[in-house]
Amino acid sequence: MKELREAIRKQGFGIGEDIVKVDMFLNHRLDIALLTNIGKAFHEAFGDTQVDMILTVEASGIAAAITTAQAFGNLPVIFAKKSHTTSTLGGDVYEAKVYSFTHHDENFIRIAKNYLPKDAHVLIIDDFLANGEAAEGLAEIVRQAGSHVAGIGICIEKGFQPGGQRLRNEGYRVVSLATVTGIENGKLQLAESAED
Amino acid sequence: MKELREAIRKQGFGIGEDIVKVDMFLNHRLDIALLTNIGKAFHEAFGDTQVDMILTVEASGIAAAITTAQAFGNLPVIFAKKSHTTSTLGGDVYEAKVYSFTHHDENFIRIAKNYLPKDAHVLIIDDFLANGEAAEGLAEIVRQAGSHVAGIGICIEKGFQPGGQRLRNEGYRVVSLATVTGIENGKLQLAESAED
Repeated sequence: MKELREAIRKQGFGIGEDIVKVDMFLNHRLDIALLTNIGKAFHEAFGDTQVDMILTVEASGIAAAITTAQAFGNLPVIFAKKSHTTSTLGGDVYEAKVYSFTHHDENFIRIAKNYLPKDAHVLIIDDFLANGEAAEGLAEIVRQAGSHVAGIGICIEKGFQPGGQRLRNEGYRVVSLATVTGIENGKLQLAESAED
Repeated sequence: MKELREAIRKQGFGIGEDIVKVDMFLNHRLDIALLTNIGKAFHEAFGDTQVDMILTVEASGIAAAITTAQAFGNLPVIFAKKSHTTSTLGGDVYEAKVYSFTHHDENFIRIAKNYLPKDAHVLIIDDFLANGEAAEGLAEIVRQAGSHVAGIGICIEKGFQPGGQRLRNEGYRVVSLATVTGIENGKLQLAESAED
């Protein structure tokens, strides 16, 4: 997505070898015009397949999930909640364990069973894809519910980390709107695109 | 806001004396058509005043903040991050302490200084107003930045808790789209409105 790649080029920067800093428009301060167009881009990418609802994880996936739901004509969004501890709600929630390479810790993500029916076609949306832990956890929750992953839409994929390859090898349809291939002296390197 | 009050009446319920359960449309599963209209309602309420950006706190304030920003013609949104510990970033962040009556614990909310300029007119948006701690924390951050609170927009105010009164006494313009006045046998009581 050209507009997103331009925002990454103009505003984003890298820290060290693997931190992609884009919180001036994507996940702390939100550029709403850009995010609205990100939603439209995900609709363009997945509009040919059945999508009944959007699933993401708090907090930074929520923005793109909402604008995607709007682009699909106001589908429901469910955002999984994160916690350092396993749920005490037992049978009422679907839950998956997610390791964070950024924070070197383990989280549980969960959603209330009531809100994810069986046999739904669920589009997973997130802001970042690095090692793929969050997306794998969300896909695991969809499986627990007896539903189907319609696709995985990612704003920015870190192409130099293994999550994207792993998810594609598992057969998921993964669409990333921009792919950062590396960081050189604080500058983000982007994958070429026919749009550029 | 009639549509929100109807959603509360039809789908919401109360637990015990003070838990308002609306996570089937407002803060776990999101009803995007309703949230888009909530944004329009905040624009109607605050459209007569200068608003340069929307401020909220993760995670459940983000949805209404985004749709409000859209209704204002794509203003930027900043969402404060929550943490159990004070920041190690020192001078780079504005930070406020927020006590949670729900979880009986203390959180810090913070935003990067870069993203909140001086002399901005900031509209605070949140999903709930109960004791007012989150809104007070956000207003404190706006003050630290040398900016102005243009208003405080709340989806659901718990009228039987003191936050709304306290904020209004402090001179803030607080607009709540629905007010729950109490819970009786699991049923949410709503304040009367001319719209009903």
